[in-house]
Order: sequence, then structure tokens, then C-alpha cells
Amino acid sequence: MKQIVETWVYEAGENIRKRLTETLQVETKAHANDLVTNVDRETEEFFVGKIKEYYPDDKVLGEEGISDEVTDLTGRVWIIDPIDGTMNFVHQKQFFAISLAVYQDGEALWGFVYDVMHDELFFAEHGKGAYLNGERLSPLKEVPLSEAIISFNTDYLYERPGLELIVKKARGIRAYGACSLEMAYVAKGRLDAFVSDSISAWDYCAGKLIVEEVGGTVISQIHNQVEYLKKEQLIVATPSLLSDLQNACQIPSK
Amino acid sequence: MKQIVETWVYEAGENIRKRLTETLQVETKAHANDLVTNVDRETEEFFVGKIKEYYPDDKVLGEEGISDEVTDLTGRVWIIDPIDGTMNFVHQKQFFAISLAVYQDGEALWGFVYDVMHDELFFAEHGKGAYLNGERLSPLKEVPLSEAIISFNTDYLYERPGLELIVKKARGIRAYGACSLEMAYVAKGRLDAFVSDSISAWDYCAGKLIVEEVGGTVISQIHNQVEYLKKEQLIVATPSLLSDLQNACQIPSK
Repeated sequence: MKQIVETWVYEAGENIRKRLTETLQVETKAHANDLVTNVDRETEEFFVGKIKEYYPDDKVLGEEGISDEVTDLTGRVWIIDPIDGTMNFVHQKQFFAISLAVYQDGEALWGFVYDVMHDELFFAEHGKGAYLNGERLSPLKEVPLSEAIISFNTDYLYERPGLELIVKKARGIRAYGACSLEMAYVAKGRLDAFVSDSISAWDYCAGKLIVEEVGGTVISQIHNQVEYLKKEQLIVATPSLLSDLQNACQIPSK
Repeated sequence: MKQIVETWVYEAGENIRKRLTETLQVETKAHANDLVTNVDRETEEFFVGKIKEYYPDDKVLGEEGISDEVTDLTGRVWIIDPIDGTMNFVHQKQFFAISLAVYQDGEALWGFVYDVMHDELFFAEHGKGAYLNGERLSPLKEVPLSEAIISFNTDYLYERPGLELIVKKARGIRAYGACSLEMAYVAKGRLDAFVSDSISAWDYCAGKLIVEEVGGTVISQIHNQVEYLKKEQLIVATPSLLSDLQNACQIPSK
């Protein structure tokens, strides 16, 4: 089954690369910067079609809502963002990913994050490690904050003023605008931590498993334990950085 | 001559990719986050050796200072950063570039920015346009701030508080940590603007020509006209964004 899913991911990526040579139909969703395109929808339809054909009893939770209304994680649930980083997709035609996770009764089985344009497939299987293009990723190294590279959305600085300390003490700050990729980058050691703003299960479920399989920590800023069916604000980090980031992400009292 | 230089850039890139499979020797320069490696130095030596062999009368201004002491831009001057984005090079093994410009009496002839790991060669020739892997780049599109994606170093927010307005009004903010690439991304339309902190000629001379050849603007925040032999803080932008960014980059009076 894992091999079948991998084939779908590569096929979807190939389709996306082809569609990028054509003009995109871009619309906005919740607000002016919340973009969606025909390719997001088509890609989700592709996955939903395959899943319903091969595994008709499974449930699908997808960003574009083409699939099921999922109210709990019992049974086998597929959690899909067909294009994570749609703004990058539209403006840059790169730095976006297919994010796909398969959960069984609330536990991750597999996570796939596929950087379509750079042809990097991050994959993890529960208890069996994480991989980039088939090569096993090393366990995360512990680093002090002074040698850490950390990513987050810059506008988050105004919601979490404690992050100023992180900006000033860390070795470097980055912002890529594609949550699943930033989590995969933590797993690969390209980043040492990623602090998200409000994101959904399809944004982080695949990345979470990939990070955890190399010894990284993924927690909710608000209530520690991640609640999959709610929007979450996460801290994704090598364990040594966790307490600094938790302090930095305290919501200021009014 | 242009073809010869291109060959050198590709050869240097190939050498860097090989060296990345070995352990890097990392040292710090001006401060703890100002990194240099053996590969930076070797790559600069490679270029200086080639230039001295083929064009012995030319001057070379390079980041690692292996070459000449350049006090003015008369004659033909090569301006080289062997690895722009050394922090990314060390931590990520990607998102760094070879930046190489050739100037004649203070005027840019050619600029090369080579993203070594993604094999993207940005090139411009004065008056003849800019190219990515041989394909001509389109003239920059004008975009309103509300649809712009802008990059800068996040810690710069504390030096230029006017940037808060940009963060809140722009469609997206990014931070990649490799100035020459961020300039090339503006030229390619992946970013609409880039605001730099204090950088040197080897960081921006190649990127400046590439951006200007597609109709972009590169100015100094302080005195508008770029002074090549001083450290500069630049605004690189599609012209429609320039006045907003100039206002945002005002130094607050104490």
C-alpha cells in the first residue's frame, strides 16, 4: 500500500509540473491572501478519486473540502493538502509541497511531503524512521539557540512579542511560507525549529510524523498535545530549543 | 570571454557540490554568525587563479580577500563572492550561490548568480537582458503592495520599525538568507522586492545588474545612488513598490 501511495504522489507531482506551464486560475478563500487554484482542486480530486477506488471504506480529510466531512479520526483517515504553500505556487512556481498523511485510529502510519519542483520526497513510517528520496535521515542534533536556524511567519512577531528574543539570539531566521516543507526541513536539519501560526491538520500531519521519527518534538503552543481536528499553532523543534520557544510564544496578557 | 567565465562558474559549482560530501572546516570572521569555510576560500582561489592566468591586468575584489586591494573601479574589475549565503551552505547545504560580476570603469558588463544546488544560473549582460539557464527573463510586473511578496532579514525589523507596515500590508514576507539569490528572485518575479541589511559589493553587484536588466530598481536606503566600495543597505524592487519601501526604511530619529 505504501508503494501505491508513493506512486500517486509522484503522479500528482508530475501533473502539477505540467499544469504550471499553463495559466493558473487563482481565487481567494477566507481572505485576500488565502489563495486557491484550479490545480489545488484538481490535485485533491485526483487523490480522493484514487482513495475511493482503492480503499472505499477510508475517510479523507482534505484542504479543499472535496472529500468527506471528518468529525473524528476513528478508522483509517487520509489527511491531504494537495498544494501546501499555494502563495508560493502562484507567485514563485516553487517552494510548495504535496502533504499527505495516513492515520489509523488517530495514530500516524505514514507521512509524505513532496517538494514538487525540487523533486524531494520526504517520507516517514511510524516507528521505522524518516527518509529523503529513500535515504534515511539522521537523528536530530541538539544545538544551542545561538547556533540555531529557525523559521516562522514574520507577521507572527506582532502576535508573540517574545519571539524578539529568539530573533536576536538565534544564528539565523528564515521564512519560506510552506509549513509542511519547513517541518521537513527541521527533520533534515536544514532548520532547527519552525514556529507556525494557525494551521490545520492537512498542513502539519505528514510533517509531524517525519519530524518525530528523527527525534524532533511537535507541540501545540496553547495546550501542548496537538488536537488534530482544530486549528493549531505549533512549535516544531529539536528538543533542546523547546523551552526557549515555549517561553517566546507566550501570549502577552492584555 | 563571457562563455569562458560561464565555464568557470559551472566548474566551481561542480567542485562545491563534490566538497559538500566531505566535512567542512567552519570558522567565524567578524562575529559568531559570520561564517567562512575552507570551500569559500578554495572557490575564491579558483576564480582568482583563473583570472590572473587569463586576464592578468584585471583587478579582483573578493569577499575572502585572497585577491587585490581594490580602492577604485577603474579598469576591469571582477567582484566575487565565492559562496554567498555561507550560513545556508554550512547548515543547509543549499540556498547559497556563487556571485560574480565583471565591471569596466565602474559600469557592470556581466553578472552571474549561480544557485549551485538547484542548478539555476542567473545571468545578465549590460543592455542585453537577464536570463535563467539561458531563457530570457520577462520585464518585471508592477504589483500593488497588497499583492507583493517581499524578503528581508527578520532582525532588520528592529532597526527599521517602518517595516511593520510592510509586513502587515504585503501579501507575504520571506527570508532566505542569501542576498544574491534574493536579488535574482526579484528579477525572476519570485519576489517583488528585497530589502537588505548591510552588505558589500560582492554580495550585490551581480544581482544588481540582473535586476536592472528586467526593469527593477536597486538603490541605497541612505543615499539612493549605490556606492560600490562601501557597505550598503539596499532596496531592490519593482518600481511600484519603491516609495513604500523607502518610507518604511527611514531610520527612526532618536
